[in-house]
Amino acid sequence: MSVITIIGSGQMGSALTFPAIENGNEVRLVGTHIDKEIIDRLREDNYHMTLKATLYDSCKYYQLEELEEALDGTDVVIGGVSSFGVDWFGTEILPKLPDGMEVITVTKGMINEPDGTLVPYPYYWQRMLPEGKKLSLNAIGGPCIALKLANHDQTHVAFCGEDMEVLRKFKNMLTTDYYHISLSTDVTGVECSVALKNGYAMATATAIGMEELRGDDFKLFDAQAMLFGQSMKEMMRLLDVVGGEPINLIHGVGDLYVTVFNGRSRRMGILLGKGIPYAEAKEMLAGETVEAVVIAQRTAQAVRDMAKRGVLKEEDYPLLLHIDDVITRGVKIDIPWDAFAEEQ
Amino acid sequence: MSVITIIGSGQMGSALTFPAIENGNEVRLVGTHIDKEIIDRLREDNYHMTLKATLYDSCKYYQLEELEEALDGTDVVIGGVSSFGVDWFGTEILPKLPDGMEVITVTKGMINEPDGTLVPYPYYWQRMLPEGKKLSLNAIGGPCIALKLANHDQTHVAFCGEDMEVLRKFKNMLTTDYYHISLSTDVTGVECSVALKNGYAMATATAIGMEELRGDDFKLFDAQAMLFGQSMKEMMRLLDVVGGEPINLIHGVGDLYVTVFNGRSRRMGILLGKGIPYAEAKEMLAGETVEAVVIAQRTAQAVRDMAKRGVLKEEDYPLLLHIDDVITRGVKIDIPWDAFAEEQ
Repeated sequence: MSVITIIGSGQMGSALTFPAIENGNEVRLVGTHIDKEIIDRLREDNYHMTLKATLYDSCKYYQLEELEEALDGTDVVIGGVSSFGVDWFGTEILPKLPDGMEVITVTKGMINEPDGTLVPYPYYWQRMLPEGKKLSLNAIGGPCIALKLANHDQTHVAFCGEDMEVLRKFKNMLTTDYYHISLSTDVTGVECSVALKNGYAMATATAIGMEELRGDDFKLFDAQAMLFGQSMKEMMRLLDVVGGEPINLIHGVGDLYVTVFNGRSRRMGILLGKGIPYAEAKEMLAGETVEAVVIAQRTAQAVRDMAKRGVLKEEDYPLLLHIDDVITRGVKIDIPWDAFAEEQ
Repeated sequence: MSVITIIGSGQMGSALTFPAIENGNEVRLVGTHIDKEIIDRLREDNYHMTLKATLYDSCKYYQLEELEEALDGTDVVIGGVSSFGVDWFGTEILPKLPDGMEVITVTKGMINEPDGTLVPYPYYWQRMLPEGKKLSLNAIGGPCIALKLANHDQTHVAFCGEDMEVLRKFKNMLTTDYYHISLSTDVTGVECSVALKNGYAMATATAIGMEELRGDDFKLFDAQAMLFGQSMKEMMRLLDVVGGEPINLIHGVGDLYVTVFNGRSRRMGILLGKGIPYAEAKEMLAGETVEAVVIAQRTAQAVRDMAKRGVLKEEDYPLLLHIDDVITRGVKIDIPWDAFAEEQ
C-alpha cells in the first residue's frame, strides 16, 4: 500500500483514482485553483461533476490550499494538469514536492524551442527545477479517455521515464485487469508520438466533414484511410527526426485513431472539412478547450523551424503544414492529396 | 495512349476502368468464368451489376473465351482476380500472355510456405511461369474500396514491383486527380503489410461487437484504440521479420483503418466480439466471401511455422494468434488484453 497524491482533479487525474484505489493504495485528490467547485462537490457525495462519475468513498479530497497536508506522508505524486497548466505545475507545484519524489503526469504534448527542438514535458520541467532540487519526472501517454477509464473499459497506456525501476513501481501501483500499462525509457518517442496526434486527428477528420457536406450516407472511407495513412507517415518521420523508437509510434497512432472518433479535434476537423474557416469554426465550438489546436500549431512551428536548420524537409509534412496553414494563417482548406503519393 | 486489358471483371478490376479510360487509354475488360453475367449485362448498357455503377461507353467487353482477341495489341495487363483465383490466374492466364508483357494485379495477400515463409503473389506467380517465360509482375496495395474508386473519391494506393521504370509507366497510365499512386520496389513490404490487415481488422472490430453487446450508445474507444495499436505493433514486427521497409506499413495500417469500418472483416469481427462462435458467425454471414478469414489463417499459420524455426516468437503476436484460435480452432473469444502491455 502506498499513499498516492494526485494533483489536478480534472477528468483524467480523477479517473486515475479508480485503478489507484483498487490496488489498495491510499489516494488523495488535490484540486487546482480551477477545480474548487469539483472538490467541493466531491466532498459532499463523491460525485465528480465533469467526469460524471462517483468516485470511491475512500478517496480523500483537498483544495489547493491544503496541498501541504495532502503531501504529508505521500509516497508518489500523479500530475493531472492539462497542457495549459504546464508552467504553473512547474513553477508552483514541483518546487513544493519533497526531494526525491517520484512523479508521473498525464499531461500530453511537448514544448517547441525557437530552433524547433521538441522537448517532452518531463524534460521541460526538469530544467525548471530550482538548483539542487531532485525529482523523478515521468509521464503517461497513449489512447486513454478519462470517461472510459472511469468506466473500467479496457485501456492501454505507456508509462515513460528514464528509470525502468521507477516505472515498474508506478505500474505495480496502478495496473488492473482493465488498465494495461506498457513501460518505456524512450520519453521523447512516447511523448512526441502522442503529441503529434492532435493535428493529425483534425486533419483526418476533415474527410468526415467532407462526407457530411455531401449530405448522404456515403462514407469517404478511402479518403479517410488516405489521410490516416499520411498522418502515420508524417508521425513516423518526425519520430525518427527526434530520435524516438519506432515501436512507440503505436501509442500515437492508437491515440490518433481514438481522437478521430471522439472529442474536440474531431469536431474541429469536421468543421474545417466542410470548408468553414478556422476563425468561424472556433466560434462554433466556443467553450471547448482548444488544447489540440495549440499543440498542432506548436508541432507545425517546430517542423518549420527544424526545416530552416536543415534537420528535415518541409515537403515531407504536407498534411501537417496545410492544416497549420488553415488554422494559423486562415488559408482555405484544400488537402494536397497528390503530395501524399511518393516513390519509396 | 495505351491498350490496357483488365482480366477479371469483378468490382476492383472494373473500377479501374475509370482512371484507365480517363487517362485516354483504350480499355478492354475480360470476364473470368464466374463473370459471364456481368459481361453480358455490361454489353447491354455498360451497367456493372455488383459494382452498381455504369462504366464508360468506350469500355470494351470480352468473355473469357475471347481472351486471345482481347490480348491482340494489348500493351499492358491488369489482373483483377480475388485471392481465390490466384492459382487459376497463374496457370490459366499468365502462360497465355505475350512474352515481356507488363502485368499489375489487384490481388491482395500472400502465400505461406510450409516453413512459414510468406511469398507475395508476384513472386509466387513468377515461380509458376513455364520455363523461359518472361513477364513483369507487379501489384497494387493499399486502402482502396472499388465502390469508392468508381465514385471518384480520393484514394491512395501503392504500386509495387521490382522495376521502378515499369511502375512509373503504370502510374502514368492510371493516375488521376482522385487516384493517387505511390511507387515502391519493396514488394514484400507492401504486400505483407496489406495482407496482414485482414486478421487484424477482424480483431479490432471485436471491440465494436463488445460495444453492441452492451446495447447502449457507449463506445469502447479505448479498447478499439488498444486493439488497433496492438494490430499495428504486430504488423510492424512481422514486416520487420520478412524484411519489408517500415514506411510501407502505412499502406497496411491505412487499409486496416478502412477495413475496420467497412466490409466483411468488420462484420465477422463484430459477431466474434459478441461471443458468437466462428462456425455460427460464418453461417450468419452466409454468402459472403471469407477471403479475409483465409488470409488471416494463412498469416497466423506462417507465424506459427516461423516460430518453430526460431525466426520470431509466438508471444510477440498474441492478438493474431488468439483470433486464429477463435476462427481455426473454435476457441471461445477472450482477448488477451494484458499480453499487450510490454516493457520496451
